[in-house]
Amino acid sequence: MTTPTRRQLANAIRFLAADAVQAANSGHPGMPMGMADIAEVLWNDYYKHNPANPHWVDRDRFVLSNGHGSMLQYATLHLSGYDLPLEELKHFRQLHSKTAGHPERSETPGVETTTGPLGQGFANAVGFALAEKLLAQRYNRDDLTLVDHRTWVFMGDGCLMEGVSHEAASLAGTWGLHKLVAFWDNNHISIDGNTDGWFTDDTPMRFEAYGWQVIRNVDGHDPVEIKKAIDTALKSTDKPTLICCRTTIGFGSPNKAGKESSHGAPLGKEELQATREALEWPYGPFEIPDEIYAAWNARAAGAQRETEWNQRFDQYAAQYPEQAAEFTRRTRGELPADFVAQADAFIAKVQADGQTIASRKASQNTIEAFAPLLPEIVGGSADLAHSNLTLWKASKSVASDDANANYVYYGVREFGMTAIANGLALHGGFIPFDATFLVFSDYARNGVRMSALIPAHSIHVYTHDSIGLGEDGPTHQPVEHLAALRYIPNNDVWRPCDAVESAAAWKAAITRSGGPSCLVFSRQNLPHQPRSAQQVALIERGGYVLADAEGGAPDVILIGTGSEVGLAVQAKATLDAAGIRTRVVSMPSTDVFDRQDAVYRESVLPSAVRKRVSVEAGVTGFWRKYVGLDGATIGIDTFGASAPAEVLFPHFGITAEHVVDAAKSL
Amino acid sequence: MTTPTRRQLANAIRFLAADAVQAANSGHPGMPMGMADIAEVLWNDYYKHNPANPHWVDRDRFVLSNGHGSMLQYATLHLSGYDLPLEELKHFRQLHSKTAGHPERSETPGVETTTGPLGQGFANAVGFALAEKLLAQRYNRDDLTLVDHRTWVFMGDGCLMEGVSHEAASLAGTWGLHKLVAFWDNNHISIDGNTDGWFTDDTPMRFEAYGWQVIRNVDGHDPVEIKKAIDTALKSTDKPTLICCRTTIGFGSPNKAGKESSHGAPLGKEELQATREALEWPYGPFEIPDEIYAAWNARAAGAQRETEWNQRFDQYAAQYPEQAAEFTRRTRGELPADFVAQADAFIAKVQADGQTIASRKASQNTIEAFAPLLPEIVGGSADLAHSNLTLWKASKSVASDDANANYVYYGVREFGMTAIANGLALHGGFIPFDATFLVFSDYARNGVRMSALIPAHSIHVYTHDSIGLGEDGPTHQPVEHLAALRYIPNNDVWRPCDAVESAAAWKAAITRSGGPSCLVFSRQNLPHQPRSAQQVALIERGGYVLADAEGGAPDVILIGTGSEVGLAVQAKATLDAAGIRTRVVSMPSTDVFDRQDAVYRESVLPSAVRKRVSVEAGVTGFWRKYVGLDGATIGIDTFGASAPAEVLFPHFGITAEHVVDAAKSL
Repeated sequence: MTTPTRRQLANAIRFLAADAVQAANSGHPGMPMGMADIAEVLWNDYYKHNPANPHWVDRDRFVLSNGHGSMLQYATLHLSGYDLPLEELKHFRQLHSKTAGHPERSETPGVETTTGPLGQGFANAVGFALAEKLLAQRYNRDDLTLVDHRTWVFMGDGCLMEGVSHEAASLAGTWGLHKLVAFWDNNHISIDGNTDGWFTDDTPMRFEAYGWQVIRNVDGHDPVEIKKAIDTALKSTDKPTLICCRTTIGFGSPNKAGKESSHGAPLGKEELQATREALEWPYGPFEIPDEIYAAWNARAAGAQRETEWNQRFDQYAAQYPEQAAEFTRRTRGELPADFVAQADAFIAKVQADGQTIASRKASQNTIEAFAPLLPEIVGGSADLAHSNLTLWKASKSVASDDANANYVYYGVREFGMTAIANGLALHGGFIPFDATFLVFSDYARNGVRMSALIPAHSIHVYTHDSIGLGEDGPTHQPVEHLAALRYIPNNDVWRPCDAVESAAAWKAAITRSGGPSCLVFSRQNLPHQPRSAQQVALIERGGYVLADAEGGAPDVILIGTGSEVGLAVQAKATLDAAGIRTRVVSMPSTDVFDRQDAVYRESVLPSAVRKRVSVEAGVTGFWRKYVGLDGATIGIDTFGASAPAEVLFPHFGITAEHVVDAAKSL
Repeated sequence: MTTPTRRQLANAIRFLAADAVQAANSGHPGMPMGMADIAEVLWNDYYKHNPANPHWVDRDRFVLSNGHGSMLQYATLHLSGYDLPLEELKHFRQLHSKTAGHPERSETPGVETTTGPLGQGFANAVGFALAEKLLAQRYNRDDLTLVDHRTWVFMGDGCLMEGVSHEAASLAGTWGLHKLVAFWDNNHISIDGNTDGWFTDDTPMRFEAYGWQVIRNVDGHDPVEIKKAIDTALKSTDKPTLICCRTTIGFGSPNKAGKESSHGAPLGKEELQATREALEWPYGPFEIPDEIYAAWNARAAGAQRETEWNQRFDQYAAQYPEQAAEFTRRTRGELPADFVAQADAFIAKVQADGQTIASRKASQNTIEAFAPLLPEIVGGSADLAHSNLTLWKASKSVASDDANANYVYYGVREFGMTAIANGLALHGGFIPFDATFLVFSDYARNGVRMSALIPAHSIHVYTHDSIGLGEDGPTHQPVEHLAALRYIPNNDVWRPCDAVESAAAWKAAITRSGGPSCLVFSRQNLPHQPRSAQQVALIERGGYVLADAEGGAPDVILIGTGSEVGLAVQAKATLDAAGIRTRVVSMPSTDVFDRQDAVYRESVLPSAVRKRVSVEAGVTGFWRKYVGLDGATIGIDTFGASAPAEVLFPHFGITAEHVVDAAKSL
């Protein structure tokens, strides 16, 4: 082989993909074969990265929103020199390989976000681009540019059909994220076949309606046209760019190109051989000529780029030591050294103050206290700022170019919000929080799941957490949501019972770097609970004895969360008076409590005490895990109703009296 | 008062709304005041209905997608003569009133769908319009038109920001639903204030990109312009219409009009008085002059319209008796008289055949058997027809004008699909099913919730129900979804263990008219289970003894669902051999089982037997409700992994051996 042609470089992707899918007997060859030429041009001529250091902070970000084409990403990572050896590609889709069926950030170096659930990668990418903009406007100086990278996205027809693409594209346009470039793989095929029957949008017009620069009718198999389009994208100073690439799915396959049969199944041995012949690729499976490896290898260029940046950073650090230190701390994901101490001091003060306020208000007070300590906080709400109480004094819209911009007006876009916030978290340098009513976590649910799976250090704030929101009625009243969110693996749900637990929950969410937290707050006022300093410290264990039985082991244990802890405390007084020794356990986070050691859990919920009553204004089945078959549950297993909160709680039987009756009945 | 002006007619809406919100001290006056003029023109000049019979089948459908403006709908219903007396309006947002905070179909005559969760009403409306199109093309004859009505939607900025608006609008455009007319309440205000900061879409351009007719820049307070726009909409023969109305939120309020302060809180007594003066409305709260009632009253016109239609129907019935009978049966929501018998015969045959196939394949076989009996079935999938196995021999795309059109290619639009299917169900005449992978029920989750809340007789088909889907990996592997769906009140979740239970689940879903069912199927083959006829009949009780202990009461009970029932049966053989008397309970639907009488439940799960093991490839906490603190659970509480299914089950410890070990350990 002489100097490889661009097509040959692209064919290396095609055959790595098709051969890996064949070896796994599972996977999606069509997309990598269709987008190979685009990927080749992007990675070899534009993509700014250092394969030896996938964590270099000023690298470009690449997101494969059509994640089923994962082999395209693995192939480019392998070919360009990442720590992803051929052996891994040969074990595509096998247990313990670094090449999962869909790209997973936690498994594969160079994968910026986990994709597969369509449209979300694109929304993550909007978050990446927003992160870059915010870091740039805070840290760059006229004479020294620290942050200057792009976000590139590949997306398919499926991503564009998903509603989340609408939400994310709209915001990207509003914010003018001009360093965001999306490639639309316009191959006119989705799983059910030719998209004529179900995808007739004029997508270029649609994106122009969002304020994007749109480059139409690019031949996705012509490197010259692709380069021209990218060059035009790079010139944009105020708009994100959509490059509409006409491609052929399964390009090169004589009998399956352009057909849905190439989408989600191996080509088959015969067709693979025919494709080798058609594309004049004489090499065997997983055989890549040295010349092709050499042309793809980006390690030298990458090392040089990062070295230059490091020199620039040293210069910056000399001139702006404080900013440099903060930048380094943030991008490493470290909290300020004194944050925990300051947070604890605040929590102690809240305990001392003893305010009876809504936990959403307590949440706002906590944000007000913590945000000034943490420039990495970027808050936001899906058009409910004044209901979620997510604004604080120093909030500044990210739509501005203010160095301290830290608040996102997401509009009514719960799913886009969540996926964008995940992107902010994954980019590095930010701890985002998003917010909506608890019931509308439904709209964002797969985004919450993805934050736990990837994982992303996102904080999801959900207020109006039960029938306690009152008159808005059952469409707005969560019933099943607490339980459903708790069941998402690696997702910590907190439902605090008062201002103190609210502050402690915020601290837990901020200090937890391994995944998301959902902070669930009330609309209505919640009574302050007295606690010793030791009890305050126990909140972070997720569940603790808030008020214990006196004079011996408890006869009965009442377990409550959030607004119902107050009812449990009331019930205890009645039960105590009746000579029933009663313990109240406050359980703001079952997820965190379940992670405690067995000795601690036993100390809170002794196995011998089987008379247990749970009380939570949500589905009761969840609580059988703690009260067993012999206990009782107070809650609500139907939809709510529209009426004032003080009418609804008795109507649905969620009262201290019912807790007392239940405890006595055991 | 002489003949009231149009503005006075509209002001009746304004003050009923503002006064009711004031009386409730809760609610949203801004939208009704802003859209009152549009509503007045629509209802008094165009809306085809009969207030005395809200169920007249050929009525127009009206959907208030911006449901927080519920008082607008209650006011129009009251004024035009529905059974919604003034007393109900005075009790807005109170327990047991017919005037909930957001419109609820189950509470208020004339409310076609429950709204509030933004964007979904619009998507329901697309379903209504599709239903009308399908009924028209099946039943209308050249000389006799039985079905000819329109669907009208009010929607706000919030609906348009939501992703589901994208999905639904795109499909409405593809299908050319020209009898669908949406009014955009373009008031430039959402809860967070002026939408400039977060809603900069060129919405008219966006809808043109979907193939809609768009009427721009209509003054939403000028009846002449409104009428002109509607007249243009009525002329469309191939496109749905969006009428873009510039309006002032809180119109008439001297100090709050045009401001977010009028959106979601009472105007206040002083401002209400000032509004009365500004709009020259001398009447007290809930005082409507007779002349205004007279001008609004639509009972005479409605009765005449329905009478005319009834005469036409009689003529039709004479000419086309079979079609008329089928039309009547379907629109009454009745199944064919012999359906249950035919279904039971099919189920018995499946039991006799004893096939070991994937339950998704068993589902397809069942559809193939049942759909020819039920022209009301409209199936569909979110671009996974060949994975969900939702196509049957007689499937015909609804994009056609075929009289037998019955299948929706929804594209990759899970939420839009679900909300559109809900609209089909609510319209009457259809039993829709939608389909996607179980994990992507997340994308549609609030749509599933709404189908249970409204309720709608929708069937949600979810395949690829566990790690058993294999190589696609954790982004595609549901873990928490079964539990989370079961917790939605009034939602019946079925996870059949073989072809027989699959058929029985379909029968249950079709015969259940009071709400939705989720039918959850495997990708992989599931072994056939032997059953007596009596056991086959017990499937519909949700849980039953599949294989009982011999020689006495069981020592241990194994409870399984779906693909894990086979493991429980294997484990029983080992346990029996070890002298442990073992019962296997198959529990395809915990929701249905929980509704059985206590005696039956006790017969399946005797209280005295506390050695219980659950086995389900999903989160384990859910099962504590059945196995208690003393039982054991086999399942998965982490995310899955990408590998072949046969590798994953042992990897995650979901095996017959583990069930045996767990049972022995108790």
